[in-house]
Amino acid sequence: MRTPMTLREKTAAFIDSPRFRNFIIGVIVFNAVILGLETSKPLMAAVGPFIHALDVICLYIFVVEIVLKLFAHHFRFFKSGWNIFDFIIVGIALVPAAQSMSVLRALRILRVLRIISATPSLRRVVEGFLKALPGMGSVFILMSLIFYIGAVMATKLFGDSFPDWFGTLGASGYSLFQIMTLESWSMGIVRPVMEVYEYAWAFFVPFIMVTTFAVVNLLVGLIVNSMSETASEESNAATDSYRDEVLARLEAIEKRLPK
Amino acid sequence: MRTPMTLREKTAAFIDSPRFRNFIIGVIVFNAVILGLETSKPLMAAVGPFIHALDVICLYIFVVEIVLKLFAHHFRFFKSGWNIFDFIIVGIALVPAAQSMSVLRALRILRVLRIISATPSLRRVVEGFLKALPGMGSVFILMSLIFYIGAVMATKLFGDSFPDWFGTLGASGYSLFQIMTLESWSMGIVRPVMEVYEYAWAFFVPFIMVTTFAVVNLLVGLIVNSMSETASEESNAATDSYRDEVLARLEAIEKRLPK
Amino acid sequence: MRTPMTLREKTAAFIDSPRFRNFIIGVIVFNAVILGLETSKPLMAAVGPFIHALDVICLYIFVVEIVLKLFAHHFRFFKSGWNIFDFIIVGIALVPAAQSMSVLRALRILRVLRIISATPSLRRVVEGFLKALPGMGSVFILMSLIFYIGAVMATKLFGDSFPDWFGTLGASGYSLFQIMTLESWSMGIVRPVMEVYEYAWAFFVPFIMVTTFAVVNLLVGLIVNSMSETASEESNAATDSYRDEVLARLEAIEKRLPK
Amino acid sequence: MRTPMTLREKTAAFIDSPRFRNFIIGVIVFNAVILGLETSKPLMAAVGPFIHALDVICLYIFVVEIVLKLFAHHFRFFKSGWNIFDFIIVGIALVPAAQSMSVLRALRILRVLRIISATPSLRRVVEGFLKALPGMGSVFILMSLIFYIGAVMATKLFGDSFPDWFGTLGASGYSLFQIMTLESWSMGIVRPVMEVYEYAWAFFVPFIMVTTFAVVNLLVGLIVNSMSETASEESNAATDSYRDEVLARLEAIEKRLPK
Repeated sequence: MRTPMTLREKTAAFIDSPRFRNFIIGVIVFNAVILGLETSKPLMAAVGPFIHALDVICLYIFVVEIVLKLFAHHFRFFKSGWNIFDFIIVGIALVPAAQSMSVLRALRILRVLRIISATPSLRRVVEGFLKALPGMGSVFILMSLIFYIGAVMATKLFGDSFPDWFGTLGASGYSLFQIMTLESWSMGIVRPVMEVYEYAWAFFVPFIMVTTFAVVNLLVGLIVNSMSETASEESNAATDSYRDEVLARLEAIEKRLPK
Repeated sequence: MRTPMTLREKTAAFIDSPRFRNFIIGVIVFNAVILGLETSKPLMAAVGPFIHALDVICLYIFVVEIVLKLFAHHFRFFKSGWNIFDFIIVGIALVPAAQSMSVLRALRILRVLRIISATPSLRRVVEGFLKALPGMGSVFILMSLIFYIGAVMATKLFGDSFPDWFGTLGASGYSLFQIMTLESWSMGIVRPVMEVYEYAWAFFVPFIMVTTFAVVNLLVGLIVNSMSETASEESNAATDSYRDEVLARLEAIEKRLPK
Repeated sequence: MRTPMTLREKTAAFIDSPRFRNFIIGVIVFNAVILGLETSKPLMAAVGPFIHALDVICLYIFVVEIVLKLFAHHFRFFKSGWNIFDFIIVGIALVPAAQSMSVLRALRILRVLRIISATPSLRRVVEGFLKALPGMGSVFILMSLIFYIGAVMATKLFGDSFPDWFGTLGASGYSLFQIMTLESWSMGIVRPVMEVYEYAWAFFVPFIMVTTFAVVNLLVGLIVNSMSETASEESNAATDSYRDEVLARLEAIEKRLPK
Repeated sequence: MRTPMTLREKTAAFIDSPRFRNFIIGVIVFNAVILGLETSKPLMAAVGPFIHALDVICLYIFVVEIVLKLFAHHFRFFKSGWNIFDFIIVGIALVPAAQSMSVLRALRILRVLRIISATPSLRRVVEGFLKALPGMGSVFILMSLIFYIGAVMATKLFGDSFPDWFGTLGASGYSLFQIMTLESWSMGIVRPVMEVYEYAWAFFVPFIMVTTFAVVNLLVGLIVNSMSETASEESNAATDSYRDEVLARLEAIEKRLPK
């Protein structure tokens, strides 16, 4: 005879049921559409308050969902990164100031990202992305170093004549990021700079080569890591069982041989 | 004694013969040249009606080909994706309006794509491309999500001051696609936007990083998938036969050993 | 007793000697420097005739080299692609018109490419490049097809309003190549076009996606081919000898077992 | 009983201790911040001399560190590439002219690169980069060749009409580098050139294709090298021990079989 479920266990069963999950996914998609419609000015002029009301209803559903989860799982709720992610995204919208600051209001659309935590296949892709990050750590530190050094040098060398592009460390960093993406680097930035500082190319061309080479190496590293993982996973299953059988049979033969 | 072929069997044999296939490929190439010549204004002024007539003849040959195939294969015709592809491409040209609307008239050149369904080697390349698509599904959904969120945020944040670039969801989506391809993203879009919204870079630089990282991961995924497939196909043939032989011989030895 | 070498054999031995090879490499490098100096106007004004004379001497050395090779190898000379390559490059300079037409005069610098045929390591790299080309054949035909179809459609749809970019098949092909490289595709071409044809993006955005995807697949194909070749070369040597030994030993054991 | 350490041994032990290493890393980071603050004009106006003094203190710490290392290791100090790297970077700042020339003063920020030689994980990444370079040697020479030939041809063909872009070998080389990175190649350079020389595309489009293809091959080569290295390292450990065991057991069985 099973003991009757407590209210907490019932809640846990309810929020883990496929029906509730699908309902939440539906609400997220509906909320995404609502937030999309909010960008249309003629529509907002006509039925703005109604659309806002629907958005608030969606938000309340998310709040109730999280309260239920907190009740069911207590502090274990915060052990999952995805739960913390949901908590923050829904929480932002509840900050009182959120309704008055346009930036915070624009952040509401981030709620749509909850579709990732709610659907396992997307979750796996994002987790795959995140798993690739630590392997990129050293290259990332190196890139930051190159950018910092580049920004300091560019500010000192070209800052006086081109304050818009290289006036401060921040401006230089942004300009160097643009140059790394190769956007208008020559016609837009380096050729004008070279009209004042003839040898500016000796700074920018090596910068492009080094950062491009670092990016390429990062890409190569990602591919090689991902591939060797896949390769070892795949080959081992079949190979291991074969090898075990060969060794077992050889041992059996040896045992049965006359001493 | 073989029973005489029915008309349907004879038709099927005829349309599958290499001679007929090569004739159709010839007609497609000829039609491609004709449609290319149609873009030349002096030529059309001189012999326009003649060129049009040749184009119509090509079209009729394709219609007859499809009618023959339909007769020979009945509804099985529609089981092949390539046949449906041919059917639609030829069908478009027969819509009455097709002669009056310039867009539909321009679509006639798509008939040249029939060269793909008609030559096995190109067919295989395209089928290879299509086979790679499902593996990209999750990343593709994720990209759409990022674009949708990005478009809603950009419209809300920058739409009022830059209606041409971020006035509507559609305009924002197009601008973000341009930014993802890194075309004039800084000099053309972000620097002007930053003159009004100083911190616009905090939206666009992470957007570029996330989309670029997603594209890179998609590329890595494609390479790894394609490679592990090739690797397993190649190695297994030789390895499997070797392993089978080793195991068979070991078994034989065991059987012949004294108990 | 060896029979004395004929003059032809002596010549063959001479032109294959490392000394002669190095001398020719030296002449190529020297000629490269001479042709580089020719681009300097002040230098040409001062010692132009002297530089020209040095260039002519280099050319004559190459002519003598090829005549010697032809004498030594007769028609077998033309069996090597690299020899034909040398023959054409040196031959161009001897065409009488070559001195008067500026384009042909500029082609003289191609002689420097002879350094590739003269140094084995560069030869191998280029041969590696050429070996990768056939595998790209189908994708290349497909790309040409996409470009041809795209050029015909673009000419028909946008040619009237934008004759500079899409007025003829050639102009459209060039513009589409520019768009494929993503250079100024949006700010430079598609946004202006969209001011006349609102839905132009529906042509250009898919074009960019399809060509980029094709290029990515080509890249993936190159990597996978190159890798599976390397992998099979490497692994087989050790694995094959191991497998042969295992099978040989198993056979030996079977033979010595009591029947 | 251990003999007492000499002063040299004590010094060697001291500079190799983790405490001293971490202290030096701390000084490098502190120096990086100082050099970053130097780019801020208001700050320099207020406390410029103080900031300069801190920078000089950092420099003296580095000098003392190198003197200690030289004392401890004598000439073996110069056997490590990283030590030579540190020596040059610190040495630049001691050149008397370094304070007066703005370029040399800007080079001081390179001192931050010492963080690479001081932290093993970054050192390994950079060593990985450098290890990849020799494999790129032939492709690199080939690229230089293509650039040199391209620069000479471009200078001869387009130099007279476009002296800013193709007036000298150097200008052409820079412009071709810009074209290789695809930055404004068409709208910025080739379309204007084509207004004077109609067939200029016949030079630039093949140049783009050849250089892009060479870069792609370089990338493929890097990936394949890196992967086959990883693959052989990984697989061999397990496979070798398995193979050795199988062969040993087969031999044992053979020995115990009746002759």
